[in-house]
Formats: sequence, C-alpha cells, structure tokens
Amino acid sequence: MSTLRELLERFKVEAGILSDLAAAADLLSWDQDTYMPAGAASGRGQQLATIHSLLHARITDDRMVDLLADLEASDLDPRGADRAMVREARRVADRAKLVPARLVEELAKRTSSARVAWSQARSENRFELFAPELAAVFELKREEADAVGRGGPRYDALIDEFEPGATVAGIKELFDPLRAEQVALLESIAATGVQHSDAVLKRNYPVSTQRELCRATAASFGYDFEHGRLDETLHPFAIAIGATDVRITTRYDENFLNTALFGTMHEAGHAMYEQGIAPEYRRTPLGHGASLGVHESQSRLWENLVGRSLPYWEGAFPALRAAFPSQLAGVALRDFYAAANRVENSLIRVEADEVSYNLHILVRFELELALLDGDLAVADLPDAWNERYRDYLGVTPPSDALGCLQDIHWAVGLIGYFPTYAIGNLVSAQLFEAAKAATPTLEDDIRAGDFSGLLAWLRENVQRHGSRYRPAELLVAATGKGLTAAPYLAYLRGKYSDLYGLR
Amino acid sequence: MSTLRELLERFKVEAGILSDLAAAADLLSWDQDTYMPAGAASGRGQQLATIHSLLHARITDDRMVDLLADLEASDLDPRGADRAMVREARRVADRAKLVPARLVEELAKRTSSARVAWSQARSENRFELFAPELAAVFELKREEADAVGRGGPRYDALIDEFEPGATVAGIKELFDPLRAEQVALLESIAATGVQHSDAVLKRNYPVSTQRELCRATAASFGYDFEHGRLDETLHPFAIAIGATDVRITTRYDENFLNTALFGTMHEAGHAMYEQGIAPEYRRTPLGHGASLGVHESQSRLWENLVGRSLPYWEGAFPALRAAFPSQLAGVALRDFYAAANRVENSLIRVEADEVSYNLHILVRFELELALLDGDLAVADLPDAWNERYRDYLGVTPPSDALGCLQDIHWAVGLIGYFPTYAIGNLVSAQLFEAAKAATPTLEDDIRAGDFSGLLAWLRENVQRHGSRYRPAELLVAATGKGLTAAPYLAYLRGKYSDLYGLR
Repeated sequence: MSTLRELLERFKVEAGILSDLAAAADLLSWDQDTYMPAGAASGRGQQLATIHSLLHARITDDRMVDLLADLEASDLDPRGADRAMVREARRVADRAKLVPARLVEELAKRTSSARVAWSQARSENRFELFAPELAAVFELKREEADAVGRGGPRYDALIDEFEPGATVAGIKELFDPLRAEQVALLESIAATGVQHSDAVLKRNYPVSTQRELCRATAASFGYDFEHGRLDETLHPFAIAIGATDVRITTRYDENFLNTALFGTMHEAGHAMYEQGIAPEYRRTPLGHGASLGVHESQSRLWENLVGRSLPYWEGAFPALRAAFPSQLAGVALRDFYAAANRVENSLIRVEADEVSYNLHILVRFELELALLDGDLAVADLPDAWNERYRDYLGVTPPSDALGCLQDIHWAVGLIGYFPTYAIGNLVSAQLFEAAKAATPTLEDDIRAGDFSGLLAWLRENVQRHGSRYRPAELLVAATGKGLTAAPYLAYLRGKYSDLYGLR
Repeated sequence: MSTLRELLERFKVEAGILSDLAAAADLLSWDQDTYMPAGAASGRGQQLATIHSLLHARITDDRMVDLLADLEASDLDPRGADRAMVREARRVADRAKLVPARLVEELAKRTSSARVAWSQARSENRFELFAPELAAVFELKREEADAVGRGGPRYDALIDEFEPGATVAGIKELFDPLRAEQVALLESIAATGVQHSDAVLKRNYPVSTQRELCRATAASFGYDFEHGRLDETLHPFAIAIGATDVRITTRYDENFLNTALFGTMHEAGHAMYEQGIAPEYRRTPLGHGASLGVHESQSRLWENLVGRSLPYWEGAFPALRAAFPSQLAGVALRDFYAAANRVENSLIRVEADEVSYNLHILVRFELELALLDGDLAVADLPDAWNERYRDYLGVTPPSDALGCLQDIHWAVGLIGYFPTYAIGNLVSAQLFEAAKAATPTLEDDIRAGDFSGLLAWLRENVQRHGSRYRPAELLVAATGKGLTAAPYLAYLRGKYSDLYGLR
C-alpha cells in the first residue's frame, strides 16, 4: 500500500512527462506554422499524430487510471492544489477514456475531409459541397456527447471540454438578455446616422515599422520576451511550449494598421496569462489557463478594454504619430480613437467591432445547438443563418461564403467552442471593473503607459492560479460575483454613447 | 506464434514511433540553438531529458528486446534491408541495455560539470581546473567500455558507437603511414618558404550578401530548400528533423569570408546525405547516415574536394566578384584560390587547412587512447599535447587554452569520436576518385557549375543506402576497395605541389 506522499510523487512525475510530451507537440505545431519547410508537411503530420497517440496512451493507461482512483479515495485536502491537479487530470482522462478509439479515428478522418470540403465550398460559394460533411461531423459529435455526457444535454458534454462547468442552460440565461441589449445598442447607433471613417487606419503602414511597434506594444503591456517571441503566421495564435516559453504570432497587412497591432495585443494577452501562472504549477495539470473563456478574457481585456480605450491612446498616440508621421499627419487623437472603434453592421466575425461581436457569436451558438439537437436540418442552415444576421445585425449575407461558410470551426469539429468568445468578452469587462475598483488610478496609469498595476492585479486574481479553480469559482473570488453581462453592457453603453452621441 | 510478416509489421510500427520521438527531440534541440528565448533554457533541458528517457525506455523495453530476438531467430533474408534494420536496432538496443542506468546518470552529471569546468579552464587558461573532471570522465568512459565491450580493446567499444565496425588496430594501421606522409608534406611546404596571403578573405564582407551567397551555393550543390532551411547559430550544424526536413545552420563573420561560405558547403554536404536516403528507409533504423566517418566524407567532399578546388572557382569566381566587387577588385582567380587553400602550421583544429587537419586529429586520437588505457596520466596531458604539436605540426602551443583545452569533445564524453573526422577526409577522396573514374567530365561539370552528375553518383553509391550497409561494405561497393589513405594523400600531393611549387 503506497502512502499518499508516494502516490502524489508518482502522479507528479507522470504529469511532468505528459507536460513535456505536450510541449514537444506544441513546438512541432508552432514550427509547422512558422519555419517548417513546405516539403516537410506530411512527415510533420505523422510526427504530431505519433506524439498525440503516445499522450493518449499514457493518459488512458490503467496505471494512470488506478493512480487517479487511489488519489481520489485518499485523504487529500479537498481544497488544496494537489486535489485540483487530480480533478483536472481526471477530467482529461475521462474524456480520453470515454471516447472510443473508433470514434476518435472517425472524427479525425471526417474532420479532415470536412475541412477540405469546407475550403472548397467557401471558395466556390457552394454550401451543398459542405452540407453532407457537416451533417456527418454533427452526427459524430452527437456520438461523442453521448459517450462522455452524464445524461444532461448533449451540448453540455461538448462545451465542458472548452469551458469546464458551463451548461447550455446557464449560457442561455446569460445570452438572452445580452442579445436584446446588444441588438438595441447597435440599432440606436445606426439610428444616429453617425459614420466614423476608418480610412486613416487603411493608409500604407510599412511592415518593418509595424513590427517594431508590435514588439514595443507587447513589451509595454508586460509580455516577457525573455520567455517568449513574436513571429509571423497566416493565422495568429499564442502557444505555450512549456511554462517558460510562451510564443505569439501576428500577421502584418501593409495597408491596414489594425490587423497586426490589435492582433498582437490580443495574443500578448493570451500569452501573459500563461506567463503569469505560478511556478509551482509548472509541469502539472494546473499549468494552463482555467478555460477558453477565461483565456479569451485576458486577450480581449488587453486588446479592447486597454488597447482600444481613450486613455490608452491619449498616452500612446504621440509615439504612434512619431512612428508614422506622414500617415498620421493632421489626424486628431479623437478621430483616430473613433476610427479604431468604428461600428458597422458587419458580416464577418473576425472583423467585427465590440458592439457587434457577441451577436456574431450568438448566431453561431443558437445554430450549433439547434443542429446538434436535430431541431435544424443542415440543409436549412443557410436560411437560418441569414435570417438571424438580418434580425440581430441588420445585414443579409450576399453569399454563403460571407455567411455560414466563413468559419472553419464546425468543419474541424469545434462544436460548443464559439460561446467561449462571448464569455471572454463578458469576463474581460467584469475583471476590468474589479481591477478598477481595486486600483483607483488605473485610467491614469494606462494613460501614462504604466500597465504594471493592472497586470499585477490580473496576476494576483486570475493568472497565477492557472487551472487551480474552476472558471466560476475563480470569477467569484476575483470579482465577488458570478458571471454576469452587466459590466460588459455598461462598458459598451458608456464607451459607445460617447463615441456616437447617444442619450 | 506470430508470422514473420507480423513480427516485421510490429517492428516497423515501433521503429516509426521511435523515429518520430527522435524527430521531436531533434526539433527541440534545433530550436534551442536557433529561436528559443533565453529564459526557456532550463525548461527545454527538462523536455529533452524526458523525451530521451522515453526513447531509452522504449528501446530497452522487454517487448522490443523479445521482438528483436524473434526476428534474429527468424528466416529473414540475411542480405535484405529488413535484416539490416534489425541489425541496426540491435546495435542501439544493446548499447542502451548494457550501460546501467546508474552509469548513464553519472555520465550525464559528470559531463555537465566537466563542461562547465572546461569552459572556465579554457577562458582562464588553467588546465588544473579541468584535470580532475577530465580524469573522472575517462574513468566513467572506461566503465562504459567495459559494460558494452566484447572483450576487445576498450577503445573499440567506444568508437563503435560512432563508426560501426572500426577498431583501434585498423585505425592505427591507417593512421601510422598517414602521419608520416602528412608531416613530410607539411614540412616540404614550409621548406619552400612560399607564403600565400589570405588577406583578401579577411576584408569586409557584408553579412546580407554573404547570406545570399551561402543560400545560392548550397542550392547550386543540390541542397533542397523545399525540405530544409538555413539558419544562423554560434556553432554550425546539420540536423534531420525527420527524413523530409533536414536543416543546416551557419555562422557569419563580417570580416572573414571562409567561416560562413565553406561552413555552409560543409553542412550542406551533411544534409544532402540525409536528403538522399531512399524514401523506403524513412522512419526505420536505416534512415540515417551509415556512420560519422561516412557522414563527414560527404561534408568534406563538398567543402574541400569541390568547394576549395580550382575548377570550382574557375566557374564560381566571376559571380563571387560580382557579389563583392570592391572587396575583390583586382584579385586574380589564382590568388583567391591560393588564399582559400593557404597552408600554415596551425594551432587550432577548426581553423586548419587540409594538409594539417588530419595531424590535429592524430594528436587527439593518440592521446585519448593513451588516457583511456591509462598509459598517460591526465596531469601529463598538456606536455604530451605540446610535444606532439611540435613534432607533427611544427608549432608549440603558447598556452593550454590554445592547446589541449581547445575542444569540448572530451569534456562531454566524446571519446573515440575524433578519428571519424580523419576517416571522413580519407573517404571523401576515395569516393571522389571513384566518382571521377565513373564520370570523365566531372571536372568540366564542376567548372560549369553543374553538380548534378556528382550528386547523382553519390546518391546512387552512398546516400540512398542510409545505414543499410556497414561503412566498410559500403565503401567497397562504392569504390571497389576498403578504406585506404592513398587517394587522399595523392589528392593532397597533387593539389599542394601545384599550389606551392613542390617537386
């Protein structure tokens, strides 16, 4: 009979191995998107498949499962970090054990072919090429939900992978009033007839200067280049290759300043979260962010609550103008700020402003739920999509390519993932409100380019905990209340009333 | 009872996993030297240790050992590729099994501390700081030799890891006449009093142009950038991250053209070998070069037999002059060629010309053999080193830092490794002679910048075979004879008689 100490020791050794293997996979993946020569693609796919299958084998190995059971039956302090490690390991192990190998394989094959079909359907604007693949993906995801679910709604079983503890009931309760409020705000902005131009952002901004600007901006926020780096990829991302190596990427558009600048702020926000996790959680199941929603709260907070705020640009605009003197000659701070926050009834999620963004998410959430539950047939998706865009966003997609074919998520099996984007927005405002309450000088600090107080508050209340607490617990501890849309709606109303002269 | 087919299938699946894991370790290592942020060093060390220990565990696992035994007892065609795969897997498994875990750990610790001591001893020119560490490394390597050896000389057990089949007796037989001949040649060059200046190579060569030159040169030789890339590191190397991704690095010195240019040729030579291995050997134990000596033959062939030859520069010099018009204004081809092949009685191995290079190796071979066998005490190493440098190379190191402390190899436990450098030189000339015999237009082709015939010959006779044949077999098949110094000596005599006006 092993002592508790021995059990924990064995558990942590194994967790360290899993973490190092995952780091190797993450580096293979980062390299694939950055520096890998083109001809290595298929070999790289094989290497990634091997490492992932080794990870799966170790996670589902009987010795690991027995070890978890022993630890769960032990007298581990139920509120201690070690117990939380066991909880997180159990969550991952259950998912890995409960989804049959056959289903994993079918999902891999199907999402691979669906991805190809989606890409072709989008470029040819022919939804019917994608429809049968999409139906098959949803069918497999229903099977997956049945395999891992505990008898509740299928959607709950899927979202739990991305947002532990979230439920479809809770999300609906949150999103229903949110929809009404954001639709109303968007309509009242449209009713003013005010149109801020963003032409100033679409001048020629040489990439080399943008590159320096992005580096300097990320560093000023507190992103640690000693433990990270910034590279260029087609699709920007943040990735932790172990706890002490958290890299970000961005994409430069010579004729649009936003892409790289706000994109870098966003990815730096994700990366600073991982960089802020307590060293004692390294190489353990607690060494990552608590959920995708909490992760997105960090990226959106730096991108929007800080990076698109008036105080920030009051401080940062002179340096920006010095970097791009001809592009910004004669541009007033206030006009730049309005351009960076221009609201429009947008078709495309990834280009959406703050007022519209969540509405894009709500459309997806409602439709994927209906598809999963069988309340909507795949063939009816384009009409349902377009109807909701008309109702919520005031626009009708002129084509499915600019409509229900715009995102890759469903094709690759990410069902129950979209809500985490909206949750991230809500959490970002809720945290920012709490940080402001705790730090009365916060706006002045931001204006002065001093983000250390804000980062310290986030480190203390969110980042250092990693996955120690479930998202809901974490939020209550940090802000004194559960997830609520009120701070985000108040933030939007305040900011956009000012920008658009609303009552 | 499994059929042979089933045994082979299981063996190849496992070999593929080992190969993918090794590729992950290789990428972690490449990244460590190229793009990894500084603060990630200790985490990266841990990740590499984990992957290497997973590899070790799989290689020595009873199932793998039983599988090898079953395959060895089977009626596999003794001359087929599958049998060669089993042979190579056995070689690696035996080494891994026979060295006790305790010794592996002690070697890791000791070479780590010895490396630090070596670095300090070299920078402070205090051999006594390194001496006890070096003695401890040799003691552990004696233990390793006893663990893996089959009763022959200890040195044989160590060199077999790098040069399968090589023995101390065979090396002595090869090196003894070589020493006499190369010493005599060096002396007769010195006796002419001729001194070619290499000042022209030490002008200012902007790095950006050097970078383009190196890329173009490697590509012209046949290095495939679709399956590789060229980066910068302090210590240049070539590394295969799987068969379809063979990367090289170089180092640029703005005030010395040789470092990057000939260095890139050298690493490209290594990399083209790996790129030339038959696709059917990918992810098998045959998917790497046959030995370090054969590998070095490929790098030295491209660097020296091609890259430092008169025909090559007759073809390439005009383009070089166009790239560096001011640096090479008024420089005659013949003077450039003489500069690139300037002979001097050199102290430092890595800067040595072709006439001296093997003598540097012979010193190390003789001394490491004497140290291993206990015929030389570590305390007496500096004197023994200096005496040999005086006798063979006509120079006396003014300090141990420029003498026996110049190389890192012994500190990190590489005993029995140095001879492969000299073997590589000999093999390069023996192969080049055979390629010339098979391709009468070879020199004209090189002059015309057409290296495809040479590369095709090397692909056919050396590269495609990977580790299919032991080095000795490979050489006989490719050149009709076993390893001999004659072609290399004839090459040196011919080239340097011309350059220095010898009889």
